[in-house]
Amino acid sequence: MKLTIIKVGGKIVEEEATLSCLLERFAALTGHKLLVHGGGRSATRLADRLGMESRLVGGRRITDADTLKVVTMVYAGLVNKNIVAGLQARGVNALGVTGADMDLIRSARRPAGEVDYGFVGDVTQVNTPRLVDLLQRGVVPVLAPLTHDGRGQLLNTNADTIAGETAKALAPLLQVTLTYCFENPGVLRNEHDPQSVIRRLSPADYERYKADGTVGGGMIPKLDNAFEALRAGVSEVVITSWDDLAGEGGTRITV
Amino acid sequence: MKLTIIKVGGKIVEEEATLSCLLERFAALTGHKLLVHGGGRSATRLADRLGMESRLVGGRRITDADTLKVVTMVYAGLVNKNIVAGLQARGVNALGVTGADMDLIRSARRPAGEVDYGFVGDVTQVNTPRLVDLLQRGVVPVLAPLTHDGRGQLLNTNADTIAGETAKALAPLLQVTLTYCFENPGVLRNEHDPQSVIRRLSPADYERYKADGTVGGGMIPKLDNAFEALRAGVSEVVITSWDDLAGEGGTRITV
Repeated sequence: MKLTIIKVGGKIVEEEATLSCLLERFAALTGHKLLVHGGGRSATRLADRLGMESRLVGGRRITDADTLKVVTMVYAGLVNKNIVAGLQARGVNALGVTGADMDLIRSARRPAGEVDYGFVGDVTQVNTPRLVDLLQRGVVPVLAPLTHDGRGQLLNTNADTIAGETAKALAPLLQVTLTYCFENPGVLRNEHDPQSVIRRLSPADYERYKADGTVGGGMIPKLDNAFEALRAGVSEVVITSWDDLAGEGGTRITV
Repeated sequence: MKLTIIKVGGKIVEEEATLSCLLERFAALTGHKLLVHGGGRSATRLADRLGMESRLVGGRRITDADTLKVVTMVYAGLVNKNIVAGLQARGVNALGVTGADMDLIRSARRPAGEVDYGFVGDVTQVNTPRLVDLLQRGVVPVLAPLTHDGRGQLLNTNADTIAGETAKALAPLLQVTLTYCFENPGVLRNEHDPQSVIRRLSPADYERYKADGTVGGGMIPKLDNAFEALRAGVSEVVITSWDDLAGEGGTRITV
């Protein structure tokens, strides 16, 4: 059994024009599939309107109690349910969930270190039997980037991480392709040139590109996740543009 | 197969102390069960903070595009996911859904008549096979009061109606008890005396109480729903206090 896991960034699912196009392409994918989405920009916008300050450290949101409410509303409510309704309209049997629903993804609150991230959870357990069961029944899970600790606490969890951990957990059971979709057409040799996509990226390439500064910033955690997923048995990891869900272009990560 | 459908009003699920108590009691119910919740007060509060005016006609919210965003965030996000996480912590395999998820409940946008309610939907179809399948797998659906039109549009639908329509749709397949829980201990003979609960209410009693003004206001649509559900084959309808989920007290509706 094959499974395609697509992670799409917030910017794409938060704008009506790109969302509609994304949903068309996602609906056209054959076989079992699962969508993981973000929503950070909408969360920041709502927080702004509520007079709350959004604080991000290394791209991760400091999540106090009020911020947790905001992200729960935006991720699990607004963004998730609009995706679900849009997919249903395209004949996809979507089911929008957080990690709390059916106890699908548990996490542990990250201990306060140099930074106290607040209500942020690191994934501890993915409920693979329940996910496989949903997939086998033709359900297409749409995962919002929220998890729970099993003791009643919702926790904010990075969407890239949710996609990676879900892929890794399902890899022993299914042939999993993990595709990270974002604004660029892949990992670029020159960030200003969309034509400079690196087609294949091995661990040795990665080390070289990190050393010479070709790859940096937010791409580092994404690529770390990608290599980790491959080492854990995920069949294929692709980093590509949001309009290339089938993963024909983009950057293929290899080990 | 028996099924208990519990509808709880917003006030109960929106306050931490009563929510926690409600979840304890709901978790203690044996057999198949399903929870339908509101969230109107939180929606009004969020709308206020966003500088939006909440307009209600006959208890129903006028739902323009921005209001739909607010109720989607509050109902499907904040309220629904806190209930789900709380139930999971109590060993209940809760799955929070709207009518769009798995295409569980479709509706048609209410035509503008004397009042244009905006993005408000009247239930047209309940997906009974999928609901029964979830119940048989030990899943406890937690329904937020939102539906969809099957063409990508989410619609705001009254929670009492969702509970009633779901009960009616499942009645041919299951032995359904429908319990409306709210702040009062049942339908009262004297609204100022919580001891004056009407224990049994027949259609004849109902007509008499309506005529003499004993029953009025928001209780009328609730009771209309209740009698309609019974006539459609629901085994039992109870209107009771939120701390009597097992329905031992309260008002039993009979036909």
